[in-house]
Amino acid sequence: MSSSGSNGAFSHREREAVYRAILERRDVRRNFLPDPIPQATLNRILMASHHAGSVGFMQPWDFLIVRERKTKQAVKKLFRQANEAAARNYAQEKAKQYKRLKLEGIVEAPINICITCTRQRGGPHVLGRNTIKDTDLYSTCCAIQNLWLAARAEGIGVGWVSIMDYEALKQLLGIPRPVKVIAYLCVGYVNEFASCPDLEAAGWRSRLPIEQLVHYEAWGNRAAEPDASNKTAVQRLKTLPKKKAVLHADQ
Amino acid sequence: MSSSGSNGAFSHREREAVYRAILERRDVRRNFLPDPIPQATLNRILMASHHAGSVGFMQPWDFLIVRERKTKQAVKKLFRQANEAAARNYAQEKAKQYKRLKLEGIVEAPINICITCTRQRGGPHVLGRNTIKDTDLYSTCCAIQNLWLAARAEGIGVGWVSIMDYEALKQLLGIPRPVKVIAYLCVGYVNEFASCPDLEAAGWRSRLPIEQLVHYEAWGNRAAEPDASNKTAVQRLKTLPKKKAVLHADQ
Repeated sequence: MSSSGSNGAFSHREREAVYRAILERRDVRRNFLPDPIPQATLNRILMASHHAGSVGFMQPWDFLIVRERKTKQAVKKLFRQANEAAARNYAQEKAKQYKRLKLEGIVEAPINICITCTRQRGGPHVLGRNTIKDTDLYSTCCAIQNLWLAARAEGIGVGWVSIMDYEALKQLLGIPRPVKVIAYLCVGYVNEFASCPDLEAAGWRSRLPIEQLVHYEAWGNRAAEPDASNKTAVQRLKTLPKKKAVLHADQ
Repeated sequence: MSSSGSNGAFSHREREAVYRAILERRDVRRNFLPDPIPQATLNRILMASHHAGSVGFMQPWDFLIVRERKTKQAVKKLFRQANEAAARNYAQEKAKQYKRLKLEGIVEAPINICITCTRQRGGPHVLGRNTIKDTDLYSTCCAIQNLWLAARAEGIGVGWVSIMDYEALKQLLGIPRPVKVIAYLCVGYVNEFASCPDLEAAGWRSRLPIEQLVHYEAWGNRAAEPDASNKTAVQRLKTLPKKKAVLHADQ
């Protein structure tokens, strides 16, 4: 994993490889091979994760590696409890479909990785975190995506299990009270990666057309070309109230 | 950006390219070139972002592209207000050092991208989001990291500006009230990427040794090799209270 070469341009092939990792990354819940992950390989994907950017260079993440079968079984039990509750949200056909889905590979995967965010790291005034306190959580998620992509490039599947009481998980793994669990990942070699997400293949939900998700200059404006008459954003600024808006209705 | 080839193994060179993007990605705040980003290139990095995994395949993200100078100047004003407040957290030498840091490239960067999370997308019961409601925010951050890495492979620098009142930004850009802003990114070509993070180069903070951040089987255990006598995790399970622990002390 030498970062050889200049800090300059990527070749066409290098660029294609980055896009390949991004497009072929999958949330993997099945068909984990029992092959152990060598420590050197594990170290590479952890190092990739650790090289995410972080607010104020806070590096708030920790990685807890679980390999013991008994621990994984105990974690699986936490999943089962949460999943039974989740299944009750669905009725009739959707409920049947939900129960057929395979949503985790906790015990089969040779390694599980719990990724946390230590919110106090870096002291009381972390640069860049004055306005938005949750930027440390965001940084940790960026680190998780790095791990996910590096793993894909290594032929290693990663599945994120969020159907679980993370507070109970913290007790199980001895994680201190002020540390927040962000992800519990099932990690292991696989022979192949599915060509599309499991939930898409199962007909649960489709990929949204990206045109629906891109706006230009102001929300709802779908035209990519700048329109000289479109002064919406700046006009809106002029009517901006002096007092800080505190909406947070969606939080 | 064809996802050519099988869904199988990466070649050594492909793997190196993925690690190169991860290790050479930087939070870029300076030296943006004025060169416009072609629409096709912009579409590629947005498509890369859109291919992040998301809880329940929710795809909660939207991308708002800002190119108008007047809008960028208005956003810069929001940064300035927040930054003046943030600077007051530091005293003496640290305050002087803080003021010397270049923390954004809003106006210089040809494109700004605001990335949001629509928390209601996918209806009231999003699969996998029953236990941890913020998984939609986490998914959006994973999408941001995809964009960041794809941009690096394209020779495009990205800087995340979090020193800003995102509620005022929402008003400026006409973003609906229930939609949450996760990131405001400055995006543009650069001639080179710094060899280490700006805050590290400025002596603000150092990269933590990764050994301090990796635990095995239970929090605080630094030994990579499984220890047959280490029953901590399972012993802890046996003493797990039946009642759900609600701690959340750090939130």
